[in-house]
Formats: sequence, C-alpha cells, structure tokens
Amino acid sequence: MSALLTDLYQFAMLQAYHDGGMRGTAVFEFFVRALPERRNFLVAAGLQQVLEYLEGLRFTPEETAWLAGCGRFKRSFVDFLAALRFTGDVAAVPEGTPFFADEPILRVVAPLPEAQLVETRLINLLQFQVMVASKAARVRLAAPGKLLVDFGLRRAHGAEAGLFSARASYLAGFDGTSNVLAGQRWEIPLYGTMAHSYVQVHGSESEAFERFARSQPAAATVLLDTYDTEAAARKLVRLAPKLAREGIAVAGVRIDSGDLGELARRVRRILDDGGLRAVKVFASGDLDEHRVQALVAGGTPIDGFGVGTRMNTSADAPYLECVYKLQEYDGRPRRKRSQGKATWPGRKQVVRRFDGHGFMAGDVLTTADAVPPGEGLLREVMRNGRRLEAPEPLETLRRRAQDGLARLPESLRSLSAAPPYPVTVADTLRALAEEADRRAASSEAEDA
Amino acid sequence: MSALLTDLYQFAMLQAYHDGGMRGTAVFEFFVRALPERRNFLVAAGLQQVLEYLEGLRFTPEETAWLAGCGRFKRSFVDFLAALRFTGDVAAVPEGTPFFADEPILRVVAPLPEAQLVETRLINLLQFQVMVASKAARVRLAAPGKLLVDFGLRRAHGAEAGLFSARASYLAGFDGTSNVLAGQRWEIPLYGTMAHSYVQVHGSESEAFERFARSQPAAATVLLDTYDTEAAARKLVRLAPKLAREGIAVAGVRIDSGDLGELARRVRRILDDGGLRAVKVFASGDLDEHRVQALVAGGTPIDGFGVGTRMNTSADAPYLECVYKLQEYDGRPRRKRSQGKATWPGRKQVVRRFDGHGFMAGDVLTTADAVPPGEGLLREVMRNGRRLEAPEPLETLRRRAQDGLARLPESLRSLSAAPPYPVTVADTLRALAEEADRRAASSEAEDA
Repeated sequence: MSALLTDLYQFAMLQAYHDGGMRGTAVFEFFVRALPERRNFLVAAGLQQVLEYLEGLRFTPEETAWLAGCGRFKRSFVDFLAALRFTGDVAAVPEGTPFFADEPILRVVAPLPEAQLVETRLINLLQFQVMVASKAARVRLAAPGKLLVDFGLRRAHGAEAGLFSARASYLAGFDGTSNVLAGQRWEIPLYGTMAHSYVQVHGSESEAFERFARSQPAAATVLLDTYDTEAAARKLVRLAPKLAREGIAVAGVRIDSGDLGELARRVRRILDDGGLRAVKVFASGDLDEHRVQALVAGGTPIDGFGVGTRMNTSADAPYLECVYKLQEYDGRPRRKRSQGKATWPGRKQVVRRFDGHGFMAGDVLTTADAVPPGEGLLREVMRNGRRLEAPEPLETLRRRAQDGLARLPESLRSLSAAPPYPVTVADTLRALAEEADRRAASSEAEDA
Repeated sequence: MSALLTDLYQFAMLQAYHDGGMRGTAVFEFFVRALPERRNFLVAAGLQQVLEYLEGLRFTPEETAWLAGCGRFKRSFVDFLAALRFTGDVAAVPEGTPFFADEPILRVVAPLPEAQLVETRLINLLQFQVMVASKAARVRLAAPGKLLVDFGLRRAHGAEAGLFSARASYLAGFDGTSNVLAGQRWEIPLYGTMAHSYVQVHGSESEAFERFARSQPAAATVLLDTYDTEAAARKLVRLAPKLAREGIAVAGVRIDSGDLGELARRVRRILDDGGLRAVKVFASGDLDEHRVQALVAGGTPIDGFGVGTRMNTSADAPYLECVYKLQEYDGRPRRKRSQGKATWPGRKQVVRRFDGHGFMAGDVLTTADAVPPGEGLLREVMRNGRRLEAPEPLETLRRRAQDGLARLPESLRSLSAAPPYPVTVADTLRALAEEADRRAASSEAEDA
C-alpha cells in the first residue's frame, strides 16, 4: 500500500519537524479507550500487517514527485521523505491475546517524524482486525464444536476489509472462509456452496442439484431455499440413490432464509428418513453471535454456520474508540489532558495474572521499567526497523486465541455485558502521570 | 485487485457450468431491497470502480497455477478461466443520482459464467460507496454552506474503505478529505491541521503554534484542545501580531473535544476580540449528521467540520440489504421466491418523473422494453466488455449529486424518517412476474 495512504496533517507536522530539526525519540502507544457496550474483551490482531507496513515503508519516486508538485512542501522536506525509512523499535501484544480498555497492544519507539507518520495506517490496520477478531470470538464462544465459515466478503467495506475479515475471523477460531484470495494468501481453508441463481438457471431444482453433485463428486453442498426448502430436501433424497450408484455423495445442504431452526429440523428429518444421515446441514443468512447462540441453544440440528455481513462489518460496534497516542518525547513522559480524553503517559507494560486453575485473574497497567510479577503481554517484535523473528504462522495465532478464550473468566465468555475484567493501574504509573502533569502545569504557567 | 477476490462458490458454480456447457446469456441486476431505517434515499456511487474491475478482469498465470494446484478444479476448467475476460454489456444509473429500494442501479448482461463470477466484487464495490455517499449526503444537507472534510481514514475498514470513503463523500458534496492518496488519485482537495502530539512534543503550546505557522505561512490550522481550549485561543491572539509582522497569518483553529458548540462560541469571541476575525473555526470529534445539524441549528460560529469515523463506517447503518440477482437466463425471466426474499424478474428500467418545479415526483419500476414517459435512469455504459464513454470526471458526479439532492422532495431531505418516496411497479412488470411464477410452478410440479 502506498505510503501516501495517510492524513495530510502528518505531512504538515513532519514539514514543521523538518524545519525545526526535531528528530528526538518519540514513544507512541496504540490502545482502545473503552470497550464497546457489547464486548467483554477484545482480541489482539493485525500485528503482522503492521510489521509488513513498517518494514516496507518508503515513498516511490512517483510519490515524491507528486508531493513536490502539489505546492505544499519544500524541496528539502520532500528529499527527506524520499530517504525516509522506518528505523524504530516496536513492542506488541501477540496476535490472538485477549485484552481490555486502556491496555496498549502496540508501542512504537522511533525518531519523531517516523513515529508520527505511521499513525494513520497503524490505526487503520489494527482497529479493523481487532474488531473483527473480537466479534468472531463471540461467534466461536456461542457455537462450540460447530463449523463456522466467514461468508462476509461481499458486504465487507472494500477488498482489504474482506481479506482482513477472513484472516481475523480464522485467527479467532473460525474454521475457514469463502474468500478465495484469503485462502490463497494465508492458506485459510475454503468453503463454498452454490447461489440461488445456480438453481434458477436450470430447468428444475433436481437437475441443478444433480449437475452440481456430478461436478464435485464428494464435496457438493446444495442450496435448498430457492423455491421451497422442504420440497428441495425431498428432491435430494430422491436423487441420492442414482448418484450413489455412480459413487457420488452430496456432502451438505444449506438453508439461507426463513425460520432457520424450524427448517433445519424438518430438513434433518427428511434427510434422515431418506437415508442421508451423513449429509450435513449448514445455515446462513443475517447471522451473528446472538442468532447462532439461539439456534445452538435450541439443540437445532445445524452442523455449521456461514456468518457474514454482521461479523465483517462488526455491525453492532462498527468502530472502536482506539487511538495511537504520544507517551514520551525526548526522554520525558507526555500526556494529553483534553476533557474526557486524558491518557496514561510513558512506556507501559501490561502484566497479566492467572489463578490456580489457569484462568485470567487480573491485569496491571504499569510503567515498562517497573514490572510486577506476572506475564508481561507486550514483547519486543522489531528493533531498528527489522523484525526480530519470522512471522508467526496463522495456526499459532489461532491456537493462542483458543487458549486465551479458554482462560477468560467465565462471566466474560458470555454474550451479555459482564462486570469489567479487573485492570488496575500501578502506583509507578500514577506517579509518572502526576510528574507529567506537574511539568506541564509549570510550562503552561510560563506560556500563559 | 486479484480476480481471486471472490467467493469460492463462484468457482464451484462455474465449474458445473463449464461441465454442462452452460454459457447462455444471463441478466443480473444490483439493487437494495430496503432502505436502512435512517435513510430516506440512497446515492448511486462506485460505478467507475465497477467498470475498471470488469475491464481489467483476468486471472494471472500465478493465479491459475494456484487454482490448478488447489485440488478442487479440473484442468480444462482452469484453462477456461485463464482465457476468461468480461465480454458483456452493462447499464447503470449514473453516479450521484438518488435512488430507492428495489430500483436496480446496475444491470449486467453477459454469458452466464462471466455474469456470475463478478457478483462478489460488484457487491463489494457498490455497497460501500453507495453507503458512504448516502451518509455523506445527509451531512451535506445538515450543513449547507459549511466546509465539510472527510477525516475518517484511520478508522475506515482498511485501505480501500478509506480511499472509497474519500471519493464517495466528495461525490456527495464534501469539500475534501485528509486522505493524501485519495487526493493524489482523484484530485480531491486536501485538508489537514495538526495532532495533539504535535503540541505535546513542544516545550509550550505557543512555541508549537509559532513553529507550525512559520512552516505553513498562509495555511496553518492549529489545534486548540490539547490542554485548555480557551487558553490556547488566547495564546494564538498574543502570538498573531509577531507573526503578522513577518507576513504570516494563521488560517484556522480546530476544536476536537469538549462541548464543541460552547467552546466554538468562546473561541470565536476570543479571536474576534483579539482582531483575528479572519481565522476560521473548525470542529471535529465524533461528528455525524445529527451532531453537525445541532451545531449548525444553534447558529454556532463554526465554519467547517471534519467528519470521520461515523461517516466512513456508516456507523448507524454499516451495511445495506443489497443483492445482485439473476433476472433472466437464456431469454426467460427468472425470480427467486424464497420466503420474504421474492424479487421482480426480467430486465428493468427505472423511470423518474418530476413536478413543475423540478422536484422528483415519483419513480416507476418497469420492464426495460416498455418504458413510460419520463427519465430512464439506467443508461448503457459498457458494451462487449468495453466502456462506451470515457470515465466521467468526479466533478461531474459531484454536480449531479448536488442537483439530485436539490430535487429531492423536501420531506426526504430531512434527517428524520420520512414517508417513503413513491416507487410504483408497472403493470408490464407485474405481468412478467406472474409469467415467471407460472412457468416455475409448472416445472416444479414436473420436478416434484
């Protein structure tokens, strides 16, 4: 992605920093100010894309020519941009880890212009994957043991949203996606059935099913609800013996409209009575964690769910109150004190404690240099602009997320709003905030 | 964008079509089933990207090699895909035009495999720009004469969502964007101010403002709310004479938190009392059309608004009930009759009538071959896979949108839910639907 994918104000600030020779070390952290009402936890995701972005950050000659020609910037500043690379350090919470409000999941330590320039794209990359992974984790918790497939590409917000949705939902415990490019890019298992149009272009539903089954002799999942769902199931039962004689077995059926629970029960009965006990029932259509949970709780005979739009747009919480904030510059802690938007200053660490059964028992938000016992969640992942380790395989992230979900306190695993997970602020951090405030107050008094 | 950005089921269906030699002409149309609760109209957008996608559609050797190697498809089918190009015709409602539920804004007429394959990406491209243009139009209606700037890149759902948001909001009447890449790509005017971090890295707010103003001698907009908004405005007043002696004038101030209306009034008074009447006041922070309207209605002295997250994610309606549905195959009209999801079959046209004052007076949804008097909204834009005209400049689309908003019935221009705009269904279309149902019923009876 082009390095011009950023806000104009980044260049305006960098121009001023360049004019003033301001290249001191800046520390920024990314965190979410408050959890959305319907989220008891968030899941870290998107770090891999952040590191790729930082490693690849550079302006092409075409881009610097455009910047030089747009009339806003000095030649010496454009030359500075042409040579700019990301040379900083990054610490981060590993992807797949549950986290909470105010806990930084990414820290950038870099010369001021570099640390500032990357703000827009870092937020753009992290917010979305965190949001979808967190939503997908709720679907996973609602449907233990069920096949879950991301079906949301078409109504995701553009191409990248579709791709990142597939990755983030798989990371959070989905079994696969319908998104072929995501399958190719990240080796995510692919699933697919057929569209209503497939049935409609054929002379009859039976003909449509038969041709589809022949075309995929072991893997076909046919769609039942183009005309009449139960009638379609009966047609499949009549068709099965003929196909079986040729070694062809239909793998599954999909129901995409109507009362999914009631139709699934009736279809299951028709299939079972017709000897098609091995055929799986798959449901889709306007699903989210609540609808999936209701279907599962009813003991409905549905083997898998295609979950799309509502997950890929995180429809009930389509953005997070997330920020990438300056914490320190030139060795001094900084904090913003805008009304209702004050932040904790300095380089921080999140320390997680577990109880005797391995469940998460509480986190401490602390200064990075005075860490109490427990597991420090932020780990160094990049130094001087280079990754310290090869990218973690997606399967590793997926296992971490499953482990993380299993260790959540039971109340947080519920889809309903639970009392917040305990995150306490260490005394060292409170002291640092007071120090930052005292210094700011004295320089403001001078400035007033 | 890779041609693999689609759902697996498209390939499954195409494989079956290939096996069965099914290449008859298919007609698909894209439409929105129902308007979201808080939208009285939608604005057509995204056609340009659809046509680019169709013109450029092809599988690279790397992609066909991957398809051949994934174990799902026959060699002859992969060879077919390698040679596939989009050779069909497209008719569409021009970008910037208001439209309503059930009105197709895009029709594809192409050999079945081509028309089917493109479904996923067409929906992905159209839904998002329609959604953002429709939301941005509401902001425009809420703030006549005010400067409106898209600030949403960071919390848009990925890179493409950020880019398309800038385009769609500009098309719908915004004045510009903070998104530099969108500015470069589409010549959208760019706007930017500074971040809180810019103030924080300096020894004092005054120093920060002064350096920023020197760096942009005529264009600087400074941010007031890092510490104390009114105190910051007073600092700017004290700084102004010194800067003025060097020919430097601060262009504007931005307020990003707190009670925006009250702070704007106080800041305006401080600036005016200090002789800075030319300095514009710009507001941002969690804005949407409702908050903007409330600020404007109060007569608040705010000259412009930065609107971001809530617009770029269309937060109150983050997806549309939009579909791309088969209407005709091999010369015969088709319609889906799933519960609650029945559609109007055949090739359709939308005819719009205007009253004596030029206001929109009602639309007729009709068969494309029997069009009553009025303006037919769908126009042919592509034939045999080639565009009929050069892409329309974005400024043309923007003027069309402004004209369209001006012609909306007054009730629809309100942010509150209005009685629906009258869209009637022509008798010819009702007759076609009955014919399609009769034929389907008879073939179902045969099939049952």
